[in-house]
Amino acid sequence: MSPSFDIVRSGHIEFLVRDLAEARRFYVDTLGFVLTQSDPNHLYLRGLEDRHHHCLVLTRSDTPGVGHISFRLRGQSDLEGVELLLKAKGCATRWVEGDEESGQGRAVRAQDPLGFPVEFYGWMEPKEWLVRKFQEHRGGRVMRLDHFNLLVPDVAAAYSWYSEGLGFGCTELTETEGAQPELWAAWLRRKPTCHDVALTTGRGPRVHHAGFFVTDRGAIMDCADVLASTGYASSIERGPGRHGISNAFFLYLRDPDGNRLELYTGDYLSADPDWEPIRWKLNDPQRQTFWGAIPPQSWFNDAMEVRDFESGAFVPIASPKLQEKPDYAVEIR
Amino acid sequence: MSPSFDIVRSGHIEFLVRDLAEARRFYVDTLGFVLTQSDPNHLYLRGLEDRHHHCLVLTRSDTPGVGHISFRLRGQSDLEGVELLLKAKGCATRWVEGDEESGQGRAVRAQDPLGFPVEFYGWMEPKEWLVRKFQEHRGGRVMRLDHFNLLVPDVAAAYSWYSEGLGFGCTELTETEGAQPELWAAWLRRKPTCHDVALTTGRGPRVHHAGFFVTDRGAIMDCADVLASTGYASSIERGPGRHGISNAFFLYLRDPDGNRLELYTGDYLSADPDWEPIRWKLNDPQRQTFWGAIPPQSWFNDAMEVRDFESGAFVPIASPKLQEKPDYAVEIR
Amino acid sequence: MSPSFDIVRSGHIEFLVRDLAEARRFYVDTLGFVLTQSDPNHLYLRGLEDRHHHCLVLTRSDTPGVGHISFRLRGQSDLEGVELLLKAKGCATRWVEGDEESGQGRAVRAQDPLGFPVEFYGWMEPKEWLVRKFQEHRGGRVMRLDHFNLLVPDVAAAYSWYSEGLGFGCTELTETEGAQPELWAAWLRRKPTCHDVALTTGRGPRVHHAGFFVTDRGAIMDCADVLASTGYASSIERGPGRHGISNAFFLYLRDPDGNRLELYTGDYLSADPDWEPIRWKLNDPQRQTFWGAIPPQSWFNDAMEVRDFESGAFVPIASPKLQEKPDYAVEIR
Amino acid sequence: MSPSFDIVRSGHIEFLVRDLAEARRFYVDTLGFVLTQSDPNHLYLRGLEDRHHHCLVLTRSDTPGVGHISFRLRGQSDLEGVELLLKAKGCATRWVEGDEESGQGRAVRAQDPLGFPVEFYGWMEPKEWLVRKFQEHRGGRVMRLDHFNLLVPDVAAAYSWYSEGLGFGCTELTETEGAQPELWAAWLRRKPTCHDVALTTGRGPRVHHAGFFVTDRGAIMDCADVLASTGYASSIERGPGRHGISNAFFLYLRDPDGNRLELYTGDYLSADPDWEPIRWKLNDPQRQTFWGAIPPQSWFNDAMEVRDFESGAFVPIASPKLQEKPDYAVEIR
Repeated sequence: MSPSFDIVRSGHIEFLVRDLAEARRFYVDTLGFVLTQSDPNHLYLRGLEDRHHHCLVLTRSDTPGVGHISFRLRGQSDLEGVELLLKAKGCATRWVEGDEESGQGRAVRAQDPLGFPVEFYGWMEPKEWLVRKFQEHRGGRVMRLDHFNLLVPDVAAAYSWYSEGLGFGCTELTETEGAQPELWAAWLRRKPTCHDVALTTGRGPRVHHAGFFVTDRGAIMDCADVLASTGYASSIERGPGRHGISNAFFLYLRDPDGNRLELYTGDYLSADPDWEPIRWKLNDPQRQTFWGAIPPQSWFNDAMEVRDFESGAFVPIASPKLQEKPDYAVEIR
Repeated sequence: MSPSFDIVRSGHIEFLVRDLAEARRFYVDTLGFVLTQSDPNHLYLRGLEDRHHHCLVLTRSDTPGVGHISFRLRGQSDLEGVELLLKAKGCATRWVEGDEESGQGRAVRAQDPLGFPVEFYGWMEPKEWLVRKFQEHRGGRVMRLDHFNLLVPDVAAAYSWYSEGLGFGCTELTETEGAQPELWAAWLRRKPTCHDVALTTGRGPRVHHAGFFVTDRGAIMDCADVLASTGYASSIERGPGRHGISNAFFLYLRDPDGNRLELYTGDYLSADPDWEPIRWKLNDPQRQTFWGAIPPQSWFNDAMEVRDFESGAFVPIASPKLQEKPDYAVEIR
Repeated sequence: MSPSFDIVRSGHIEFLVRDLAEARRFYVDTLGFVLTQSDPNHLYLRGLEDRHHHCLVLTRSDTPGVGHISFRLRGQSDLEGVELLLKAKGCATRWVEGDEESGQGRAVRAQDPLGFPVEFYGWMEPKEWLVRKFQEHRGGRVMRLDHFNLLVPDVAAAYSWYSEGLGFGCTELTETEGAQPELWAAWLRRKPTCHDVALTTGRGPRVHHAGFFVTDRGAIMDCADVLASTGYASSIERGPGRHGISNAFFLYLRDPDGNRLELYTGDYLSADPDWEPIRWKLNDPQRQTFWGAIPPQSWFNDAMEVRDFESGAFVPIASPKLQEKPDYAVEIR
Repeated sequence: MSPSFDIVRSGHIEFLVRDLAEARRFYVDTLGFVLTQSDPNHLYLRGLEDRHHHCLVLTRSDTPGVGHISFRLRGQSDLEGVELLLKAKGCATRWVEGDEESGQGRAVRAQDPLGFPVEFYGWMEPKEWLVRKFQEHRGGRVMRLDHFNLLVPDVAAAYSWYSEGLGFGCTELTETEGAQPELWAAWLRRKPTCHDVALTTGRGPRVHHAGFFVTDRGAIMDCADVLASTGYASSIERGPGRHGISNAFFLYLRDPDGNRLELYTGDYLSADPDWEPIRWKLNDPQRQTFWGAIPPQSWFNDAMEVRDFESGAFVPIASPKLQEKPDYAVEIR
């Protein structure tokens, strides 16, 4: 019998930044991430709700982008099962020991079948929970990582990998218009919320954004105020607003290197296994912004390129099979 | 000695609408205004905090726009003083009795020196205060009228009328760039908040919007949700966001006839008579939206035309002496 | 191999009420529960986020109290495994068909080893999701059931049943003071939040309250305002405030029959299987109310008695083995 | 013609504290007051919205209490008129120069007819407005002073002094029960909000609390969280909750010396001169707390004694003519 594995949730992400000091000002001093550890090439950050070492690694690099995305497994004994599956899919893999990424146990990395540098880990060093240290809550009062949003040329194939390969369930999806609708985007989850991973049609593999959970709409508005009063107004790319999909209240930010993150709150519990996916049509204007505002073009065009997990080179990007944007987004400049 | 008068605050506004039933759905059922009285040609609405008959009159008309704006005087004995001043300025005036506008005492109307149809009144019929009837609070939980925003070709002249003629104080102002800055916009108040009237350079006389006060940011966000779930997403024109000027949190709406109103909260007390106006440069991107987002072109281009107080015809519009928009607004489509 | 089962979450609860019309005024018209179905003896209610038939059943009865608590299983095929376990523990069980409790599939009921009438079900009829119908959100905008809080004479024994028998994990616990601390209370979960079930030392078996999830602190405050303006001020028993345990923001209510429910928001994700329970001392004054206010005596003394699942008689109550209240609660009247 | 004067608003208050360092930790580091100036015997604090030197003076003293309350006049030319009135009422007065109280122009002090040490001033040194420096907003994000709440043995006499002598209008009042109701408390204003001064029946002259305005309910809840996580849970005396009178959302705090302040938000505009006072009965349980919770006994019993403006001795206290507490407060311990 092949060894099984169980993914608990999206775990952490590695953003590539050119200037760690500037990144620290943005993420720690302004947004309110907690600095767990730093070395000349990395900042390891966690949210106020995290009880482990990090949910965001900032790595010094000449070029911005994403080093890897990472999923938390139930335990270390699940590693072997994931490695086996990846290899069976023809993916190169390698073991990452604690000294390569601080604060975490032995982990397996791979370029997944979609081309993303992905890591699976089963243990992380415990760290202080700051939920009740309210005097240290700042900026957006970021609680924890919530999800990754990935751009892929072929959502149907990506969906198959995440659902059949990795065991994700689908909470919401978007289909193209017409009599023969095709899957254009999907929101997939292991933890019972709206999602751990969203797959969207686009030039990829690229990471559109990482979503971080905050307590409520007030935290998002307060964060916008603090960004605006500390010279980061231009970091606010879209929002605040409410999504149709996920029902979440959001604010999209670009860090000083252009990497994108979302502050996100107010989605729902999706625990029941008979959850029927909520279906949206691509051109429904309330799908992306329930209140109707159309995202700026940068939000459609820009995304973070990803590294080859072995060479560190950026992975080549392919064009999508389906239309890249809703019709209303094509029309705007 | 000439009779004196004392303006207490901006009082109410008359919006022209083509379909009273549709307007009622928008203002009463959705936004949460309170219907005080109706007849075949009018809806008289008040906010939850109003203790008087109305702060918004909706009048049936073939063409949308503004019938008149109105200021509350200390009492009926102040009417004569205002009339005298208007006449001294060469403005035609006439008396409005209670049967022309329901729920209000004798009032004086005029076309003011700026071309706006303006009314002054000193008494209005008391009505139930609904602040503590929380079960009837709906939509945006609109509390009361806060201000008028007027577009005028010559802000300096308009400023002079409001400050010297009517006794308004200035809380904030906008100047053009350069070594010889000129007054481009001014926020003026009688009640000690940010403003009762804003004067902005533009094609005028036109009313850009009427601002209505709501309790907090939550009411504004809840209102956007309700608008979006009742088919009014396209009524949301701009926001939510925070203004630089006024520091208020805002949402701009267009009613089914295109008339514009603002939900507004979180400005400040400006009671001290030595208040020094806060000065802004026209091209400061944080002036209009503290968070940096540029308003849509409709917000710059559209405004409500105003009626001649005698003939009911719409008042001809003149072009402004100074530039009509900030530079950043000229550049966007 | 014995059949396995998997509890997904706390599912619903049955409150006994003397007057369904009065209960409907409280739960539906005021708190904002959604009425899915009614018959002369029952109201079936759901929250705005529920996609199934009910999370709260109100049953007409001469005496208030709790008819049963109920857990959602992964599916109908899990029923047999639960029944087997209950029988192995010596509990009487019986099958409940859809016609006994509307909107739900075949279910198994039992008097559990702690004396509670408990039901397990694996299917419920889908119903409309009202999350995005914001115009219908009222009162406390109740989203869904979150947890049951149970009073038991022997927490250690109850803990063993829920953890070893039913597979619950522990997120937080309370111990008595002294060198030999004993387990006084435990917060246990299947879904990865703070809890699905809390076990507290007390005269039992009794249900202290059912907790219902709401979106944010604003919903709780708005609900208190609506309760107070509709004659239900005396229904507000405790709060609003923040718990130390769970970190949640809360409001405790008593329905017209004295049954107790909690509006609850702002706990945390507890997905990681290596979650180390957060430990509290019984007499820590910030444990119950982080802000320090001591709950009223009614909150310590009153709770809902539970029915025998077969006879319908109320189950006899036993005194706890450990002290019934924190020291500070003994001292107040 | 006697010189006239015009009181603009309640201006500032002087609290006596035993330890300036501890007071600074509480007011500046925790509540978020802004430190404008300090010397070995004083801290001069302002709110985020204040554009002047201070709204709260903390003065080192062996005994806590209130040094003086102070009202802002329209300008320096109003000083003479106030002095004249005070002298006409038989009150001793003296001039305070800028070197006695920093940051303020020449002022007149007196023991008013009610026995309170009161100051009137017409100019204060401008200071930076921190409304838009959101990164410096902390704790309760205190904006400005809002009102004083005074305990007096004879409310009718005090009402007469404030209304006829000083020109205050009445927004709300409380009467005793019965066929011959007597005035038990009154809320009086110069600025058009609920109040600048509240007069309540009690042993006096004493100051019950000073009310400080905060932006919204979120600021109050966040402040309670910060107080609780920094060791100040016992400083939270009452609330959060909503008042019936004033409709404001409140939190009552005791500073480390026992002086009482209120964080206060959400009252209303009372600009119209024909405002009819809102009337309450003394024993209406929703008058003090709209949600019904009875304040703790300390809230009824404790208040700040006031100094003789010349000798510095504390002013003797007299018992009230009417009942000291609502009936429901007498009954509780």
